[in-house]
Amino acid sequence: MLNVLKLGGSVVTFKDRVMTQNEEAIRRLSGEIAAAGPRRLVVVHGGGSYGHPLAKEHGIADGFKSAGQLVGFSKTRQAMVVLNCLVVDALLDEGVPAVSVSPSSFISTQDGRLQEFDLDIVKRYLDSGTVPVMYGDAILDSVLGFTILSGDQLAVRLATDLGAAKLIFGVDVDGVYTANPKMAKGAKLIERLSLSQVKGIIRIGEAVSTDVTGGMLGKINEAQAAVEAGVSVQLVNALEPGRTLRALRGEPVVGTILTR
Amino acid sequence: MLNVLKLGGSVVTFKDRVMTQNEEAIRRLSGEIAAAGPRRLVVVHGGGSYGHPLAKEHGIADGFKSAGQLVGFSKTRQAMVVLNCLVVDALLDEGVPAVSVSPSSFISTQDGRLQEFDLDIVKRYLDSGTVPVMYGDAILDSVLGFTILSGDQLAVRLATDLGAAKLIFGVDVDGVYTANPKMAKGAKLIERLSLSQVKGIIRIGEAVSTDVTGGMLGKINEAQAAVEAGVSVQLVNALEPGRTLRALRGEPVVGTILTR
Repeated sequence: MLNVLKLGGSVVTFKDRVMTQNEEAIRRLSGEIAAAGPRRLVVVHGGGSYGHPLAKEHGIADGFKSAGQLVGFSKTRQAMVVLNCLVVDALLDEGVPAVSVSPSSFISTQDGRLQEFDLDIVKRYLDSGTVPVMYGDAILDSVLGFTILSGDQLAVRLATDLGAAKLIFGVDVDGVYTANPKMAKGAKLIERLSLSQVKGIIRIGEAVSTDVTGGMLGKINEAQAAVEAGVSVQLVNALEPGRTLRALRGEPVVGTILTR
Repeated sequence: MLNVLKLGGSVVTFKDRVMTQNEEAIRRLSGEIAAAGPRRLVVVHGGGSYGHPLAKEHGIADGFKSAGQLVGFSKTRQAMVVLNCLVVDALLDEGVPAVSVSPSSFISTQDGRLQEFDLDIVKRYLDSGTVPVMYGDAILDSVLGFTILSGDQLAVRLATDLGAAKLIFGVDVDGVYTANPKMAKGAKLIERLSLSQVKGIIRIGEAVSTDVTGGMLGKINEAQAAVEAGVSVQLVNALEPGRTLRALRGEPVVGTILTR
C-alpha cells in the first residue's frame, strides 16, 4: 500500500517571510512520518517562501521571455534544492531513509502540464525501501521554455500513476470549508466532499472570483484526477500535531475526504 | 562547441578534512568559468570529503547488503546535494546560469557501469542557455542495488554521448607524470600521452600495484573511451589559478593532452 503525502509550502515554510523554513513543523512532521512506520511513501513538498518569491520576481511561471531570466530560473531551482535539503535532513535525523528526487532533473511539462514521464526511478527507490522526497520545482517546458511545476500537480500525478491507495494533502487549514474560514465566521468544515460538490464550488469560485474554500480551490480542482483514478484523497491540517500521523496510519482524523 | 569540465573532489574539497569544501577554489573556478564566456558547458564535480567518507563508512560502492545501509545511502546522496549546492551557488554568484542536475534522480548503473540513459534533459538545459552542473553520486544499480557513480565515469560518458569537443579534467596535479611526482624527484610531466602509451602505463600500474602516474591512472583509464570517440581530453591543475580558464578557452596551458 502506497501513500503520497503532499506538505504545503505554508506548512514547511512561513509564507510571509522570505526564505524562512518552519523548522518546528518540519521536525515534528518528520517524526510523524517516522512514527507512521515503514510503509511505502512518497513525500512531495511545496515551495512556500523559498520558491515563490524568486519565481514571481523572475516571472518563471509565465515562461521564457529573455535570457535575463536564466539566472532567476536557476536561483528558483536552487532555492527549492535548499528547502528540499532541510526536509530530507530532518527525515534522516528521524531515521527515515529519505532520498531527494529532483523533479527538474528528469521531468518537463508541456504548456505547464505534466505529460508522460518515466516513473521507473521513483518506483525503484520505493522498492529499495527508501522514501523519495520530491517538490514543486522550476522546470523545462516544451512550449513555454520553462515554468513552475506545482507540488500539487506533481503529487496528484504521482499518486495516480503509482496507483497510490491514499493521497494526503497536509495544509495549514483544517480542510475544505463551506466558506473562507478566515473571512466568514459561520464557515463549516466539510468532512466529505464529492466531485459533483467540487464542481459546484468551483463554479461559485469562478463566479465570485475569490477562493471561497479557504485557499483549497486550486488544490481540490487538481485533486479531482486522483479521486477519479480511485485514490483516496484527504486534506488535513499538518500544522496541528498528530493529524498527519493519523492520516498516514488511516485512523479517523479531522479533515476533508474527497469522494467520487 | 560543447565543453565538459570535470572538477576533481580534491579540487572542490579538502580531501583530508571531513565535509570541508575548498571555498577559495570553488569561488575562483566559478570566476574562470564565467570569464570563459557563454559557451556550451557541462560541469561535473567529484565527491571529495563530502561523498567519500560517508560512502566508505556505509559500504555504498559495494552495493546493498542490509537495510541498515539505507540511511547511509541517503546520507551519502544528501552530502553530494549539499556540495553541489555550494558549487552551483558560487556559479550563480558569478552570473553563470548554472542548474543542478541530480544524477541519481534519473540515472542508474548496471554492476557499477552506466548503460544507456536519457540525456534529453541535459541537452535541453544546454539549448536553453543554462549550464548543467552534475556530480559523482550514490545511485541505484540493477545488479548491486546501489553503488557509487564516479564523477569521472559520468563526465566521460557525457562528453562522449553529447559529442563534446573537449573534456577537461581539473585535478590537483599538473597532469600525468612519468612517475609519481609526490614520490619520485625525477618525475616528468607528460604533455602529450597517446592511448598506446596509456596502455603501457596501465600495465606498469597493475604490475607495481601502486599508481605511478600521480593518481591519474583510474582517470586516464576511464578517459580512453572519450579519446576513442574523438573528444579532445586534457588534464590541467585546477588548483593553479588561470589554467582552467585557459583550457576552457582552448589556449595553450601546462597539462597533459590525451591523444589517439
